[in-house]
Amino acid sequence: MNNEQKLIKEIFSPIAKNPESLSLNNDAAILKEKKMVVSTDMMIEDHHFDANYDPKILAKKLLRINLSDIASMGAVPYGYLLNISIPNRNSKKWLKDFASGLKDDNKKFKIKLFGGDLCSSEKIYLSATFFGVVKNKAHLHFDIKMDSEIFVSNFLGDASLGFEIHNRKNLSKSLPKISKEYLLNKFYLPEPDLKLGVSLLGIADFCTDISDGLDGELNRICSFKKLRANISLSQLPVSDHAKSALKELNLKQNDFWKYVIFNGEDYNLLFSVRKKNQLLSKFKKIKNIKKIGYFDKGRGVRFLNEENRPVKFDQHSFSHF
Amino acid sequence: MNNEQKLIKEIFSPIAKNPESLSLNNDAAILKEKKMVVSTDMMIEDHHFDANYDPKILAKKLLRINLSDIASMGAVPYGYLLNISIPNRNSKKWLKDFASGLKDDNKKFKIKLFGGDLCSSEKIYLSATFFGVVKNKAHLHFDIKMDSEIFVSNFLGDASLGFEIHNRKNLSKSLPKISKEYLLNKFYLPEPDLKLGVSLLGIADFCTDISDGLDGELNRICSFKKLRANISLSQLPVSDHAKSALKELNLKQNDFWKYVIFNGEDYNLLFSVRKKNQLLSKFKKIKNIKKIGYFDKGRGVRFLNEENRPVKFDQHSFSHF
Repeated sequence: MNNEQKLIKEIFSPIAKNPESLSLNNDAAILKEKKMVVSTDMMIEDHHFDANYDPKILAKKLLRINLSDIASMGAVPYGYLLNISIPNRNSKKWLKDFASGLKDDNKKFKIKLFGGDLCSSEKIYLSATFFGVVKNKAHLHFDIKMDSEIFVSNFLGDASLGFEIHNRKNLSKSLPKISKEYLLNKFYLPEPDLKLGVSLLGIADFCTDISDGLDGELNRICSFKKLRANISLSQLPVSDHAKSALKELNLKQNDFWKYVIFNGEDYNLLFSVRKKNQLLSKFKKIKNIKKIGYFDKGRGVRFLNEENRPVKFDQHSFSHF
Repeated sequence: MNNEQKLIKEIFSPIAKNPESLSLNNDAAILKEKKMVVSTDMMIEDHHFDANYDPKILAKKLLRINLSDIASMGAVPYGYLLNISIPNRNSKKWLKDFASGLKDDNKKFKIKLFGGDLCSSEKIYLSATFFGVVKNKAHLHFDIKMDSEIFVSNFLGDASLGFEIHNRKNLSKSLPKISKEYLLNKFYLPEPDLKLGVSLLGIADFCTDISDGLDGELNRICSFKKLRANISLSQLPVSDHAKSALKELNLKQNDFWKYVIFNGEDYNLLFSVRKKNQLLSKFKKIKNIKKIGYFDKGRGVRFLNEENRPVKFDQHSFSHF
């Protein structure tokens, strides 16, 4: 558990002792009588993006990082409220571009804008609150067990490398254009795993996104049940474009893992499944997921090399505090 | 309609064409199938408060300005999501104090914290999203009519004067301590008119709070139906403490009205009632409200002096843009 999670656990959990808050352990709260999940996420200038960012991209990213929370609950997206605070200069142009991004993704994800609040401020501050409809079940618990197998969706590290390319343009000089665009796009426009979240209902022990890094999320989950996550480095799914970037950037082995394991920005889903559940025909049909490890007795997260030996990193996942 | 409202109408209404958004005209959206209203509001450092503000007071104010939106819809408060972004220094102490304010008001208003998002940033950014349960009806429309009479709850200008005292300590030197504390308290801790909002269901033509100023809100409402609001200055409810402050501050007549009519921060409810409805025994029982004018043919807002003559002000209500 990082300091941010500790602060939440220590300070906010005691005043959120209601069934709806789910002890603040999930990405979203559930309003039980209403069968809806609700979630909120912020994006702040100089922390999540810089002032010159394309407002259309920003709008889409704001929706998608929130939709990823709805996906992780196994709910169907419904709509959202927005908070937007921006500088006074060129505000109309900025808001128009922003709204065009919202419009595109409203259609793409079949979601509705319900309302919000608009203010001015020196820096840009954005937040969205999302509503998802729960059909029957939702991913409410972290019910991990000994020997449950750990899976992740899509590729790891793409968005984190895209972020690096965005920040340090010179890094990508020798990188093929197609790889550069692919990685930047993964950072700018994450794809929430909405279908997967729903597919895993009744199958997964838990389901969450890894927006703050795989290592950080696994550590948090292990702490609930006093189990250890064993992750095979060689099994972690890495795209050919990421491999190409890693080669072109001349990264050392440890820096390579930084992007894949510790950095955030990948909005993939992480979940575990009991061995017997994997026999279900329903689970077998699910694409785009990769087994990366298993739980056993112990604490925290252990990364294993190809000889099955533990590998130590002097690195931790991102925390605001 | 101020520029902020124009921007919303022009840019966001076209992409919020769903029954739930209520065309972005209300303080909250309604999720019809669920019988809930939802609303969100921000508070930003240097705009709504300064860095040294007591976090406990900030927490309560954040909840109350949002609760005022729930009140204006005639709904019963249920709970909320929070977004908090604060500087890294002393963050734990700050969050603890903030949480103690939440705890107090959770009890006072019987509301629940459902979840949220926590980040770090140079300046403090706060927002809350609120949920209110709708029993049967809600104040969804602005159904004003010719001759409907206009009412406001509680006193006008108290919070705005409190804000002035907070900002310019020397202003209040000669002001009695009891008045100073009363006015500061009205600014720091607004009281959402929750009971009134519910009492007015089925009676009022519309109901809204006047957090951005009486004049601005009336102008906005008149624009929906092409009617004119006629407001008697002598009927506007002003507290004895405000009168005392106005005297001690040696204000000119126009500056006096600035606090009462144009400045925001008063979370009173504004509504209108048809004359026949005022005969209802239910309406007669409602306390703490004052008739301040009526609608007739025309446009915009007209303020009338004691001789019933129009008074012109070179002043407008607050807008962020």
